[in-house]
Amino acid sequence: MRPVRAVVYGAGAMGLIATRMMAEKGVEVVGAIARSPEKVGRDVGDLAGIGPLGVLVDDEVERVLSTTRPDIVMLATQTFLPEIADKVRASLRHGANVLTIAEEAFFPWETSPDLSAELDALARENGVTVTGGGHQDSFWVHQVSALMGASHSIDSVHGRASWNQDDYGIELLTTKHVGESLAEFETSTQGADAPPTFGRCSLGALARHAGLTVKSWESRVEPVVADTDRFSVGLDRMLEAGTIVGYADVDVLHTVEGPVFTFEMAGYVYGQGDADRNEWTIAGEPDLHLSSGLVPTQITTCTQWVNRIPDVLDAEPGFVTIDQLAPPRYRAGDMRDQLEAPLRT
Amino acid sequence: MRPVRAVVYGAGAMGLIATRMMAEKGVEVVGAIARSPEKVGRDVGDLAGIGPLGVLVDDEVERVLSTTRPDIVMLATQTFLPEIADKVRASLRHGANVLTIAEEAFFPWETSPDLSAELDALARENGVTVTGGGHQDSFWVHQVSALMGASHSIDSVHGRASWNQDDYGIELLTTKHVGESLAEFETSTQGADAPPTFGRCSLGALARHAGLTVKSWESRVEPVVADTDRFSVGLDRMLEAGTIVGYADVDVLHTVEGPVFTFEMAGYVYGQGDADRNEWTIAGEPDLHLSSGLVPTQITTCTQWVNRIPDVLDAEPGFVTIDQLAPPRYRAGDMRDQLEAPLRT
Repeated sequence: MRPVRAVVYGAGAMGLIATRMMAEKGVEVVGAIARSPEKVGRDVGDLAGIGPLGVLVDDEVERVLSTTRPDIVMLATQTFLPEIADKVRASLRHGANVLTIAEEAFFPWETSPDLSAELDALARENGVTVTGGGHQDSFWVHQVSALMGASHSIDSVHGRASWNQDDYGIELLTTKHVGESLAEFETSTQGADAPPTFGRCSLGALARHAGLTVKSWESRVEPVVADTDRFSVGLDRMLEAGTIVGYADVDVLHTVEGPVFTFEMAGYVYGQGDADRNEWTIAGEPDLHLSSGLVPTQITTCTQWVNRIPDVLDAEPGFVTIDQLAPPRYRAGDMRDQLEAPLRT
Repeated sequence: MRPVRAVVYGAGAMGLIATRMMAEKGVEVVGAIARSPEKVGRDVGDLAGIGPLGVLVDDEVERVLSTTRPDIVMLATQTFLPEIADKVRASLRHGANVLTIAEEAFFPWETSPDLSAELDALARENGVTVTGGGHQDSFWVHQVSALMGASHSIDSVHGRASWNQDDYGIELLTTKHVGESLAEFETSTQGADAPPTFGRCSLGALARHAGLTVKSWESRVEPVVADTDRFSVGLDRMLEAGTIVGYADVDVLHTVEGPVFTFEMAGYVYGQGDADRNEWTIAGEPDLHLSSGLVPTQITTCTQWVNRIPDVLDAEPGFVTIDQLAPPRYRAGDMRDQLEAPLRT
């Protein structure tokens, strides 16, 4: 069988790590799309630090998709479904599957139901799949759901996670409240146009995977204020103590069946001594716990994104979220050998 | 749909906890088999502490199976496949599925291949399923495999777990080396007749679930010697410092694809301050970790055993190990509502 062909859409920090990982697993990176003038025209393998792949970064989406005919588009540009919708539409119309780390795409049915339905229909029409992947997959859904499988009764499921905004590149840093005044923060998080929380897009998948029915939601967003000066590599500037360096989502999901889910997720520019955490506690019979120690969230975002490629290629057409897939699996060796169904020729 | 009908085979510590949990999830306990004269003739609900169920413990296997016609036999008597084979055969011949916490049954293909194949064939012939479940399910296979799904490359997977022999009743205590002399321990663990290690039966399932191929095994068993006096509730006697109070299996599995699995599993009568642990570390890109804090292994053995009932009833006929099933799931409410296919009438 020929190799899996992928286009990297977004040549930022995440897209370039994934480019290396795909190359190391036998995926042929056939195209790269980015708009940054410093990247357009450069070889994406060089940018990824693995030497030339013979693939130059291009800012003409239609040209890349029509000349390369990828099996899958690995999309890492923005966070919310409306922001990536045109990119997803273009990919689907070219018959490519889409696997994105746009956080809302992880489980968009609650937060963007109409757009999700539209993309679901377009994917079915073109016989391909759209899926949101990333760090949430194993750490916030499948490990937690497996732990819940050891419960006789559950009163509550409580997760706490943090990640360093400085690991994810400039696109994210400039849209996730870093350096905002308190007034700006309140406007951007509390207004009618406030975007959905990541936690909501993760708990929704977890509840559905556990076979539970959403009754109601409460979400709030709190600023994370630096207690010490810290340097942001992505922004290339010092953030002084007292600055807003990120945010914490607190999402609460009530289910018809009883269990209450709470997820506190903080994304901010770290100071000295801060580290990624992932802790889940179940209160019930029995009380259960899961801790991931130090998690390299930036890398695990990319590993799980890439490890999902065979699942997405094998999935039914439509908008398929990871609660509808088997848990993410380790992929030893070439990705093409992990496929259940052959690639179209 | 009518309730799921279960027979509890073995009315020891585990069988009685499961009896309560099944009753609380709408499973009708229609029969109970045990040989202990103190239990025969007593109501299994009374023994389980939930008040009478109208089901008396009986020592006549054929009578119970032929009069109650259970959907599933919940078998908790011994550890190894040869020890439970006749009980499994009897259940299968009566058209009942079998779900057992006999540790070897968790993944018996490496350690008892002929007997596994025979029971597999007998199960298929009768259109029912045999499965081994228990604590291993989520904590030693499915959580670990989901964590491996966040790996780009894996050098090694290393697990460490402990459990208290005193939680599992007299049958286990008298067969797992407690109180043996060193000479007895060496004979029972190193001889040609030495039984397989639990770790081997767990790592085999983990490797297969992760899509990896076994190349070779190394197993050793070490005595756990008490450093302090401790009282065994199950044996109703003091075990003095210097006594062998249990054992530690150390299993190493080499795979064709590269990753090396090591599992250190210690089962012994605890002293003051000892507690159940479950820790897994993956060395590779990236290094990953999973810790379960304090695990109530006795309870999680029963929760996962009971939570697997719908999976086993829905599974294809044959000897189906849990690496062939989806991860264990939380079961909110009545078990009959969790079934995919209707029960036979």
